Amino acid sequence: MDVNFADRLTDAIDRRGSAACVGLDPLVERLPDSLRVSADAGPREVAQAFVAFGRGVIEGSAPYIPVIKINIAFFELYQEEGLRAYQTLIREAKAAGMIVIGDVKRGDIGHTSRQYALAHLGGRAGQASSAADAITINPYFGSDGLSPFLEVAAETGRGVFVLVQTSNESASQVQNLTTTAGKSVSEHVAELVQKLAISADHVGSSGYSLVGAVVSPRDLESTDRIRRLMPNCTFLVPGYGAQGMTAKDVARCFKEDGRGALITASRSVIYAFEKKPGDWRESVRTAAAAFAREIREVAGHRAD
Amino acid sequence: MDVNFADRLTDAIDRRGSAACVGLDPLVERLPDSLRVSADAGPREVAQAFVAFGRGVIEGSAPYIPVIKINIAFFELYQEEGLRAYQTLIREAKAAGMIVIGDVKRGDIGHTSRQYALAHLGGRAGQASSAADAITINPYFGSDGLSPFLEVAAETGRGVFVLVQTSNESASQVQNLTTTAGKSVSEHVAELVQKLAISADHVGSSGYSLVGAVVSPRDLESTDRIRRLMPNCTFLVPGYGAQGMTAKDVARCFKEDGRGALITASRSVIYAFEKKPGDWRESVRTAAAAFAREIREVAGHRAD
Repeated sequence: MDVNFADRLTDAIDRRGSAACVGLDPLVERLPDSLRVSADAGPREVAQAFVAFGRGVIEGSAPYIPVIKINIAFFELYQEEGLRAYQTLIREAKAAGMIVIGDVKRGDIGHTSRQYALAHLGGRAGQASSAADAITINPYFGSDGLSPFLEVAAETGRGVFVLVQTSNESASQVQNLTTTAGKSVSEHVAELVQKLAISADHVGSSGYSLVGAVVSPRDLESTDRIRRLMPNCTFLVPGYGAQGMTAKDVARCFKEDGRGALITASRSVIYAFEKKPGDWRESVRTAAAAFAREIREVAGHRAD
Repeated sequence: MDVNFADRLTDAIDRRGSAACVGLDPLVERLPDSLRVSADAGPREVAQAFVAFGRGVIEGSAPYIPVIKINIAFFELYQEEGLRAYQTLIREAKAAGMIVIGDVKRGDIGHTSRQYALAHLGGRAGQASSAADAITINPYFGSDGLSPFLEVAAETGRGVFVLVQTSNESASQVQNLTTTAGKSVSEHVAELVQKLAISADHVGSSGYSLVGAVVSPRDLESTDRIRRLMPNCTFLVPGYGAQGMTAKDVARCFKEDGRGALITASRSVIYAFEKKPGDWRESVRTAAAAFAREIREVAGHRAD
């Protein structure tokens, strides 16, 4: 467990030849027919259906896609049963050879962030197998709210992705305010993240840090700027496909060598069966393979 | 359940005559001797000790203090057992007549925030009794990440407190950047929160909204400014006592009528026994009564 997270991630991407990440955000009302539960199903029944669904997504994706991002919000709704399902899927995705990102978006003041870090990055003995390889965290508290996550991640061979620029429309209300320094709030956060990324021994032999960033491209210019501000950070880019982002939009999230980004598609892969009759697992597999190919091409063009 | 949350809160404060809130952040290494668990205790044993400890805090506080804030991070560390303990304590605090704030600091893009809202504000049938009366949420995503929480809170007679200005030192790295409009980021967030607070039918007959704000005072001037920006929001003020904040610091978080703020002390109340030999429950009770008195005086002076 003492290989730097960024090196493990780079290795996993190289082996699949694609910096693609599948996002698992299961909704009970969108499960495939064969996994449908009744409207009054209890948490246990829903959690079991989520595990079966997630298992199909893992099996269909693992041959092509190196990373899975599991959003805990969709599991938290089902209380302890949901939490157990989330952890089961983390273990199964790891067993299938995938790197797992727990999309938990936690953040608090320092000593509380430490509790979250221990909970989600497996700082406690015997718990490591059901902790994700990396998690997403929120920067609103500044560096002392982030540092405990970095410390625990470094100790356990894991990583973090700090929210810098998110994909939703109203992100601009906070993240894109312009400061008197002539920068956006997300650019200030980017500078802070880069500083943390290169501190301690966080940078691996790949040149990337165990500290990455969630970055959704807005326009070419701002993406280029934010890419330059965080040369040592892997960008976790959300919203490919269903959130309307195209290959062209995400291309600039890669560095010029075609590395440094991880592109996530969720709904367009996991709900691929909605547009296609037949075996849902087969639809997911086909969509996963196509998505991985697209991302390989995007990164490849960038490296040309 | 259709009484506005702010009205329920105001009523609870009036009945105790004090706008005090006790924060429950249990750490296994700081439990009273009689509840100590061994160093290799499993999650179940720790969770049981947390319930026993929390029960003592509730019993000691409820006669004097109207509100308890339970930080889920300290429970999440113990996985499903911890989550169950968190929910048990929510139910017991409610049964003791306290208003319960779940300090969860969640936030994501809209459709994911909705899942968190349903999970933590009890939007699902049969789950209401173990959901908190209000939760804390993070504004980094802007209004579309906040709105789903407000919608669910309004539907279920519950409330939210949006992080505006936090108490930690590095908060300034993000929250106190100055924008070209001559305002701090937290002032922009405050304006956004006020706008959401008075939308729909969020304001109760007390004049306060089900949308409140987490505000830690920095200095008199900035506190006055932020107080004016959110006239309809109750301020949840963290860090009284242990985090070094004094009565004078928090006084300006109240409006001139001595209302509109809720002052939280955590460690100085729940770990009061550390400085005093004897029954830990008695120490907590004494500290809770003293804290409630102090806050009554602060608010009273403000209203003079």
